[in-house]
Amino acid sequence: MAQALAGFRPARRTPAEPVPLAAALHRVPAAPVTAPHALPGFARSTVDGYAVRAADTYGVSDGLPGYLQVTGAVLMGPVIGTAPEVTVGAGAAVSMPTGGVLPPGADAVVMVEYTQQVMPGTIEVVRPVAPGEGVVRADEDAAPGAELVPAGRPLRAQDLAMLAAAGVTAVPVHARPRVTVFSTGDEVVPPEAATLRPGQVRDATAVALAAMVAEAGGEPVSGGIVPDDAGALEVALRAALPASDLIVISAGSSVGARDETVGVVRRLGTVWCHGLAVKPGKPTLLAECDGVPLIGLPGHPRSALVVFRLLGAPLVRLVGGCTAPPPEPSARARLARGLPSAAGRLDVVQVTLADGVATPVFGLSALLSVITAADGYVIIPEEATGLDAGTEVDVTLYR
Amino acid sequence: MAQALAGFRPARRTPAEPVPLAAALHRVPAAPVTAPHALPGFARSTVDGYAVRAADTYGVSDGLPGYLQVTGAVLMGPVIGTAPEVTVGAGAAVSMPTGGVLPPGADAVVMVEYTQQVMPGTIEVVRPVAPGEGVVRADEDAAPGAELVPAGRPLRAQDLAMLAAAGVTAVPVHARPRVTVFSTGDEVVPPEAATLRPGQVRDATAVALAAMVAEAGGEPVSGGIVPDDAGALEVALRAALPASDLIVISAGSSVGARDETVGVVRRLGTVWCHGLAVKPGKPTLLAECDGVPLIGLPGHPRSALVVFRLLGAPLVRLVGGCTAPPPEPSARARLARGLPSAAGRLDVVQVTLADGVATPVFGLSALLSVITAADGYVIIPEEATGLDAGTEVDVTLYR
Repeated sequence: MAQALAGFRPARRTPAEPVPLAAALHRVPAAPVTAPHALPGFARSTVDGYAVRAADTYGVSDGLPGYLQVTGAVLMGPVIGTAPEVTVGAGAAVSMPTGGVLPPGADAVVMVEYTQQVMPGTIEVVRPVAPGEGVVRADEDAAPGAELVPAGRPLRAQDLAMLAAAGVTAVPVHARPRVTVFSTGDEVVPPEAATLRPGQVRDATAVALAAMVAEAGGEPVSGGIVPDDAGALEVALRAALPASDLIVISAGSSVGARDETVGVVRRLGTVWCHGLAVKPGKPTLLAECDGVPLIGLPGHPRSALVVFRLLGAPLVRLVGGCTAPPPEPSARARLARGLPSAAGRLDVVQVTLADGVATPVFGLSALLSVITAADGYVIIPEEATGLDAGTEVDVTLYR
Repeated sequence: MAQALAGFRPARRTPAEPVPLAAALHRVPAAPVTAPHALPGFARSTVDGYAVRAADTYGVSDGLPGYLQVTGAVLMGPVIGTAPEVTVGAGAAVSMPTGGVLPPGADAVVMVEYTQQVMPGTIEVVRPVAPGEGVVRADEDAAPGAELVPAGRPLRAQDLAMLAAAGVTAVPVHARPRVTVFSTGDEVVPPEAATLRPGQVRDATAVALAAMVAEAGGEPVSGGIVPDDAGALEVALRAALPASDLIVISAGSSVGARDETVGVVRRLGTVWCHGLAVKPGKPTLLAECDGVPLIGLPGHPRSALVVFRLLGAPLVRLVGGCTAPPPEPSARARLARGLPSAAGRLDVVQVTLADGVATPVFGLSALLSVITAADGYVIIPEEATGLDAGTEVDVTLYR
């Protein structure tokens, strides 16, 4: 399983496309974006106070204040858009609002709290400031050419803020991978089917796979339901390949269909592995057809969802250029009961979580209710032969 | 701060609207959805094998096999849609595929691995089965009327699978809260501004707030940039109220603007609090105007983003009917250095995370680069007066 995850690294990546900032959340930059100019672009006061030459304040204290002449004021509001006309000379102070442009000659801003007007035009300063104090340098947020966001990491809210501040209003990002999702099985009917005939089941998997594709940054494309017929599946796959960056086949609920799938996929490309040491999820198929990675999922809807979360979603991210996947929510918890597991097989156990205790939800792999009841899952690694009750485990949480 | 979070609980909730399943991921059900009928709806084999009467297998073993007459076969594929015509009588066995409809008379399925055909029409069974073994009951995934998804918890991929399986193709969910985002400040210009005049800054906050609104399930509405003018702000707010479920005002970068905001908001509604014991984020305003909650954010873009994440996003979820917010990613880590903090004040410290060590990112609250460099943040609670180097902390991770 771990080998399958590590070893199957298709080369396909989606091309870059520009998107406006307002649509760029969670999109993956195809290249680093650098600052076109310094940010904030001008030296700026970070406090309300007085712009001064720092040297004029050295040595002052409550007991021995310094005195400076107020020679002007920088204002916000009406005068924005014009550089301060006043220059700060030796022994001078210019009144400043937070965010105001530092006037020429000044190298620091004394907070208003450490000053007092002793007579009109003269202030007393009771604390010294060092050069740069109370000031954001013109290039302190970003120097020209500095990397604002890296390639490969999905954009977060604050990244958008930084890009907006720099005037970058469109970002080159990887196109969303188009992921065509097929359901197979003569017994499978669309969820819209009002009444079912004996033996029919509604397609539960496709809508959930589409949701997980979207969560991983992909664009789900419905391939529809294909009957248990090798010829029909081959026709459907050949038609989908040119417009897909990834193909997902969920095998309905019958086992026979899976074998058909492998045969068809062998005719279209290279099977990388068929069968994984994972429970649930043994009959998983990984392949590449015409440069398009393909994943064949187990028949039971729950197994299909578990395997897609472990293997499919990372593939969607990989093809979409994501090299730094976002963190997943998780929690440490103690197991309410022991879990057996065969060595050499990775087990995915659904659990509920309450008060730091993870309680396994058991049930047949055919049951969706097991995974809808769960808050998350625990992985028992290949090398383990089970976990004792009370073991501290990491629960990966659903969201 | 904690009091502000706990105490400000506006009553507003968005109304319910039906959405199709394909658009329902992360939407918040306005009422529980129950199963319209039993799921899977028919008793079903979970293995390849033979449908039998369990009692016919009691006591069999490798040394003492039982013998059963094969009286028919249930098939997948061509015969789906017709109930099995064969009935399983005493001493009989009917061949079954995984997922097949259990024929009348049978109460269990013996796995094919524990059988052997000893002559045409006769199998040997070497392991007993209990009633129900190898079978999913007709109502085992859900009984009629059972709750499939609760109200108030955003729908996860597996919830959509369960709803699809039950034939529920539209879900009543809370409408996305319309969150109008205003930026204020004479110095603030749109990100599209190609060149800036002295003292001007691009609006970095609005696009990031819109992104966080969307992440919390809301629908961001741009209120644009309002100048530092009480009259203009009042006009803009009055116009936005009828079409908003929540209003967010970011105060540009000047401090003066904030005071204007409080005055205007007092004229339109009730100020719940003004000023929070949180760093960064002290000058935060919480109010309610005509039943619409309003949050006024600090001027520095970074402070605004920190406060919105802590207070604004939970408000968006609350108004959107979400009573069980999705878990946030987090990690335990050791602090690389000590952090001072004033008692009675909640501190939000940006950190990078590597190899289990959280390293604080320091810098002026005017700098966005501090939060874009961070992987997450650590909260120093009100009651703490700082944290020592090496302290184990929870880092909430950005995604």
